[in-house]
Amino acid sequence: MATYIFGHTTPDSDSIVGAISLSYLKNQLGEDCTPSRQGEVNPETQWILEKFGFEAPELKTSYAGENVYLIDFMERSQSPKDIDEATILGIVDHHKLGDLTTNAPLEMWVRPVGCSNTIVKQMFDYYDVEIPKALAGMMMCAILSDTVIFKSPTCTKEDTKACKALAQIAGVEEYKALGMEMFIVKSDVLGATPRELVTRDFKDFNMGGNTIGVGQLEVVDLSVFDSMKADLMEDMRKMKEEGGRHSLLLLLTDIMQEGSQLLVVSDAPEKIENAFHVQLDNGEAWLKGVMSRKKQIIPFLEEQF
Amino acid sequence: MATYIFGHTTPDSDSIVGAISLSYLKNQLGEDCTPSRQGEVNPETQWILEKFGFEAPELKTSYAGENVYLIDFMERSQSPKDIDEATILGIVDHHKLGDLTTNAPLEMWVRPVGCSNTIVKQMFDYYDVEIPKALAGMMMCAILSDTVIFKSPTCTKEDTKACKALAQIAGVEEYKALGMEMFIVKSDVLGATPRELVTRDFKDFNMGGNTIGVGQLEVVDLSVFDSMKADLMEDMRKMKEEGGRHSLLLLLTDIMQEGSQLLVVSDAPEKIENAFHVQLDNGEAWLKGVMSRKKQIIPFLEEQF
Repeated sequence: MATYIFGHTTPDSDSIVGAISLSYLKNQLGEDCTPSRQGEVNPETQWILEKFGFEAPELKTSYAGENVYLIDFMERSQSPKDIDEATILGIVDHHKLGDLTTNAPLEMWVRPVGCSNTIVKQMFDYYDVEIPKALAGMMMCAILSDTVIFKSPTCTKEDTKACKALAQIAGVEEYKALGMEMFIVKSDVLGATPRELVTRDFKDFNMGGNTIGVGQLEVVDLSVFDSMKADLMEDMRKMKEEGGRHSLLLLLTDIMQEGSQLLVVSDAPEKIENAFHVQLDNGEAWLKGVMSRKKQIIPFLEEQF
Repeated sequence: MATYIFGHTTPDSDSIVGAISLSYLKNQLGEDCTPSRQGEVNPETQWILEKFGFEAPELKTSYAGENVYLIDFMERSQSPKDIDEATILGIVDHHKLGDLTTNAPLEMWVRPVGCSNTIVKQMFDYYDVEIPKALAGMMMCAILSDTVIFKSPTCTKEDTKACKALAQIAGVEEYKALGMEMFIVKSDVLGATPRELVTRDFKDFNMGGNTIGVGQLEVVDLSVFDSMKADLMEDMRKMKEEGGRHSLLLLLTDIMQEGSQLLVVSDAPEKIENAFHVQLDNGEAWLKGVMSRKKQIIPFLEEQF
């Protein structure tokens, strides 16, 4: 029976590429592993897959009775609904310690770095397994994506080191230029529905019994949202109600200005204001220097809830 | 501010030695770390410390405001009461994924091996840091203790490999004989009160909202308990009530016969019977081949609760 390896719901490039890279490594180590995904492939990830000649992993949302490795998450809210009926053999992740538990000992490679694929690269090194050229290119892109080309405060020396080593294996000299090209693809929001945009990179968190959803869109120029903010807010209100959420936040991150426009619908907007020491104006506020949901948003929300 | 490194409540040799070995490694890597402990040093650990010329780590039960690394546990029930007011920087462990959570990303080295010190040995290798001779001897003893001289079903190839490498560094040729000597020290139950024996290696688990306590005593000959079983059961009943526990189990493990006499006081003894497919006779049953609380007891209790 093959073991499935997959990332969080609403997968990003790190989750999809990580499922592929970790499966490859585990297969080389003699474990029969298959990458899968819990949701649609976003445009950025599609671009990465095509660029390096890979297929998207199988879409699979139910894992009862399966052996699994999780990559890039360890929160129940980002898991398949039947995760308790699966056997979690291991977790590779770079987030906070979440609320998943297991009944038996497992393998965990968790580091406070900017990207799961940085950890997978370290695992390849640890086991002394060679990384194929095209796979290295994808892993490099995952790191460039998660660290916003090294600009995110989540980016560590280990990420830049891993990314540079992967670029060398992939034979890519101008990897920062490739990263910019990727973010321009990511910035393409025209033609997408508000719901597609809010959920493109979206995660629910359980904070003190409340469901708090936080989406993020990273673009090279924030002005693309000027004409659609009202529609985004309207759809966020609906999505908050539909999901029984306490709050729904959307970060519109400008990677050149290095900050985020925060959109908020909440049962207690003052908690959001307190978390980031800002005043919301029509549910909006500019968060200077904020680029990382994980490091600059979630811990401060946790403190309030 | 120094970072504290400590193991679970009612520390065993792996928890105490692991706090010392991981602190040494972290200090070599430039982090200022101090080993500590949440409880009394047991006779086996005392023997190890004296044999290799170490002092017991500082006794410390409150960690509010401190940075900490946890070794050999990740269960809330085995944590200091104010763990939520500490910042968990990392966890090195070989148990199931427990119910602790954090607000920020962290470092986790978790492997399904027989002993935390096996993982610490792998960390020394990963970072290419030399292990001092006496420290290697202590780490070797921790592995021999946790794996019951390689007899426990929790023992993996990684444990035997790490133990042999540590024995070589420590200059100990007859490490299995040393292990037996250590277990004879561990077997010394005469003169101890029933409470001292029940709590010598004791862990509480939260299972579906119930507190289940499981103690274990490993001896080279089970007959040492013949005259004290009634007193043990009597004190277990008291301890169950005092702690508001649903069940309290004590495993009397015979490392030569390779099995355990199970003593049980419980609000639902049938659940315990179902877990291990045995019939309790006056709260007792022989579990053939059962040597590991972690692998052969806890998962089957979890299934029932």
